Amino acid sequence: MKTIKNLQNLMRVLQDTQKLTSAIALLSWDQECYMPKGGGEARAAQMSYFKGLEHESRIGDTMKRALSEWLDLETGELLTEATAWDAPSQALLRETWRDYHHATRLPSDCVRTLGLETSLAHQVWIDARKQNNFALFAPHLKRIVALKKQEADYLGYTDSPYDALMDEYEPGMTVAQIVPLFEALKTKLVPLVEKIGQSSISADDTLFRQYYDPKRQWDFGLTVLSAMHFDMENGRQDHSVHPFTSAFHPTDVRLTTRVDPHDLLSSLFSSIHEGGHGLYEQGLPSEYFGTALGTSISLGIHESQSRLWENNVGRSRAFWTYFFPKLGAVFPEHLKQVDFEVFYTAINGVRPSLIRVESDEVTYNLHIMLRFEIERMIIEEDLPVEDLPEVWNDKMESYLGIRPETDADGVLQDVHWSGGAFGYFPTYTLGNLYAAQFFHQAKQDLPDLEDHISQGKLLPLKSWLNENIHRLGRQYSSDQLVRRVCGELLKPDYFMTYLEEKFKAIYRFS
Amino acid sequence: MKTIKNLQNLMRVLQDTQKLTSAIALLSWDQECYMPKGGGEARAAQMSYFKGLEHESRIGDTMKRALSEWLDLETGELLTEATAWDAPSQALLRETWRDYHHATRLPSDCVRTLGLETSLAHQVWIDARKQNNFALFAPHLKRIVALKKQEADYLGYTDSPYDALMDEYEPGMTVAQIVPLFEALKTKLVPLVEKIGQSSISADDTLFRQYYDPKRQWDFGLTVLSAMHFDMENGRQDHSVHPFTSAFHPTDVRLTTRVDPHDLLSSLFSSIHEGGHGLYEQGLPSEYFGTALGTSISLGIHESQSRLWENNVGRSRAFWTYFFPKLGAVFPEHLKQVDFEVFYTAINGVRPSLIRVESDEVTYNLHIMLRFEIERMIIEEDLPVEDLPEVWNDKMESYLGIRPETDADGVLQDVHWSGGAFGYFPTYTLGNLYAAQFFHQAKQDLPDLEDHISQGKLLPLKSWLNENIHRLGRQYSSDQLVRRVCGELLKPDYFMTYLEEKFKAIYRFS
Repeated sequence: MKTIKNLQNLMRVLQDTQKLTSAIALLSWDQECYMPKGGGEARAAQMSYFKGLEHESRIGDTMKRALSEWLDLETGELLTEATAWDAPSQALLRETWRDYHHATRLPSDCVRTLGLETSLAHQVWIDARKQNNFALFAPHLKRIVALKKQEADYLGYTDSPYDALMDEYEPGMTVAQIVPLFEALKTKLVPLVEKIGQSSISADDTLFRQYYDPKRQWDFGLTVLSAMHFDMENGRQDHSVHPFTSAFHPTDVRLTTRVDPHDLLSSLFSSIHEGGHGLYEQGLPSEYFGTALGTSISLGIHESQSRLWENNVGRSRAFWTYFFPKLGAVFPEHLKQVDFEVFYTAINGVRPSLIRVESDEVTYNLHIMLRFEIERMIIEEDLPVEDLPEVWNDKMESYLGIRPETDADGVLQDVHWSGGAFGYFPTYTLGNLYAAQFFHQAKQDLPDLEDHISQGKLLPLKSWLNENIHRLGRQYSSDQLVRRVCGELLKPDYFMTYLEEKFKAIYRFS
Repeated sequence: MKTIKNLQNLMRVLQDTQKLTSAIALLSWDQECYMPKGGGEARAAQMSYFKGLEHESRIGDTMKRALSEWLDLETGELLTEATAWDAPSQALLRETWRDYHHATRLPSDCVRTLGLETSLAHQVWIDARKQNNFALFAPHLKRIVALKKQEADYLGYTDSPYDALMDEYEPGMTVAQIVPLFEALKTKLVPLVEKIGQSSISADDTLFRQYYDPKRQWDFGLTVLSAMHFDMENGRQDHSVHPFTSAFHPTDVRLTTRVDPHDLLSSLFSSIHEGGHGLYEQGLPSEYFGTALGTSISLGIHESQSRLWENNVGRSRAFWTYFFPKLGAVFPEHLKQVDFEVFYTAINGVRPSLIRVESDEVTYNLHIMLRFEIERMIIEEDLPVEDLPEVWNDKMESYLGIRPETDADGVLQDVHWSGGAFGYFPTYTLGNLYAAQFFHQAKQDLPDLEDHISQGKLLPLKSWLNENIHRLGRQYSSDQLVRRVCGELLKPDYFMTYLEEKFKAIYRFS
């Protein structure tokens, strides 16, 4: 049977293209972490140029020649001689064609202009957020929205232009699938939030809002990353305004976090979260990096890795059984007198809050639903950009019962729109669903899992994820992967059961 | 008269090529400053790929078309309609053709292989230096030398293959010009070193070898960079093993330094030195960046900027009249009791030492002569790489009367060879000569210059350099520039007079 070795031409084109993609990732990482402010304009032009080169590389003659050796460029159908090959080779061809086909629908000009606009908008967003001045950002966002609508038209869609945009992050996902899924969740989430609100137990997080030395916070984050077996020989962590993970190669994975001296948890949980993303990237097969066999499946699956570590592990009783004494040793002045149960309840406080990235596991998904609805209004219904702060604040009030006092705490809080990432937010909630289902399966496969976690031994879980998810790259679709790992398709029940059991125990309701 | 506006096609090709060049600079900066160790192999492949792309961009069809609109591609001769244009346009065409012609002589394969080898060798050099193990580095150096000889053959030369390599850094410079120049210097330097050695004054630098808090060292370096008007909105400073300056754009100039907690001066003077390079890059005209009109002239001229700031300014009585009290306030525990004259003499101590970058203004040039001779032996006489440590140590003994005890303090001390930079070292001494001559002229043009410096006012000098050197880019050759600024060609006399007067006053000989 023919294997991947027969695809050397194609592999070379893909791996060369990846070198451009990784350079763009470095330009972007540097922009967030180190670039002096004055460099923004030149960097924007440079990023735009590189995105053009990358786009050309994905659809140019070299790629066409390499692909058309094995399949029909128009339809993606494999030529007869390729249909008998092994599964990874066929998956590689199928996924490469999908990317190719996707990229051919977008004219280079369109890609280049969006690259330029978003690179400029990013710096403006940082300033606008700092100055709490949405008007500064609005004209940039307006141009980006117009470009994204144009993009959706180029990409094509059946029901909603939003489907076309979402497909970039979560292949195959549609508004039609998300709406009932989110409705089902809401049906169970709302009573859960109510029950928690009525509980006599209250989580007091004022403890975490004192001054915690940033250097010691940073170092404790590194300790946890090390326990997770995030490999610092093949990665690092830096500071940035908005935490993110960027992989230039499985041997060079960059995490970032934001340390708030008056918030013990924000940077720690973001380190764990990004560490989960980072483990996925470090766990991809190096030899196939740049090809579909060495790339993550979707943002939802990627997010499942970060959520699993951040929530299912990082906010669990087992995890803190081991790490609470460690953290207490780092901050004895704050934590020496604190009872474990008080601490565990405090890190699992559920209360409506303004900032998505700092919200709890339960209300988090309401933040996502709000963004999903607003994005649909922007993309499907031409909601004017100027109206966004008002719409945002109204929805916050209706969903969470609180209203942001500033746009910095409202519509300006997230980086995504400055980068043109419409259709991205729903993948966060999908990530929660996948995470719960995978974690449930991991506990079936590793009966001692919780014991290990409570001893600080995180290697078995990391290895299970490496083996069952990371090493497979994009060989399977997300549906296929979930079925392969868990024996059934994605179900929201695992997530809801996880939440209900966990918070029932903490808030003691029946 | 037609102007640069008529060269828009050419400008666009050049500025696009610069985007590749700047990406390579970022990949390299990141490799030195932040890249995790495991990323080395993938980075090497990526750099090599980009250097290939850049080379193609410099000689590809788009460049050929843009250039051949105005000149004969084979000879560089301007077509009739271009000969009547303004001087900057003609300079741009002339210099662009020079680069084009240079690049066409090197096959892409050759460029790519050297890129790959040097990127790998760099990491090995860091390890070899750390472990004091030349044998680790030798096989890499051997391959690099072979490639550089091949490169010299491709480039072509009349007298020595070393000329071909040197031309890359100092256009037009030859062994035949350097040898008598270095001989003339040696004739005056050796008696100067002798007189200093016989002086009853001795510079005691044990003061500087105590523990100086690295953070405070770093911050004082930033204070001096700020006084030099190095613009931190358009640049930054980071840590690296070997200090260097890298400019991605005049609005994004990166300096690096290495802080030694037991050496007060090493990082400070390297900050000033790199700051001098950085001011040149920030002073280039942004609108022409990536073209000959927005590029530095040669490494010798570049080095004149760093040397002028490091030595003519940074080791002067006037400079420390202002900065000594400032430094004393930062390190009162070390410096409060120290007399100004003792300090000023100490920072101008002249004594044979092992490490080039830490040596004094007088003996420094002997370090360069040694490297120049060894490089000629390697390139012209096939000296086996294995013999290098022995040859190095013998020459150190003969030139400076001291013998390194380790290769880390000897042949492994400099980064240059791991990057294939043969022919680079002589530009350091040329830089000293240019610096002395420019500084002499600046004092003529700005009669209050020393007074200003002694008040910490460094803006007049920085502006003089901007006006007379930086803003001109590569419009003039180094010879033309020196004549334009100083009214005569480069003469070593200014440098020797500067040294003799300065050190006569310090060491009190006649």
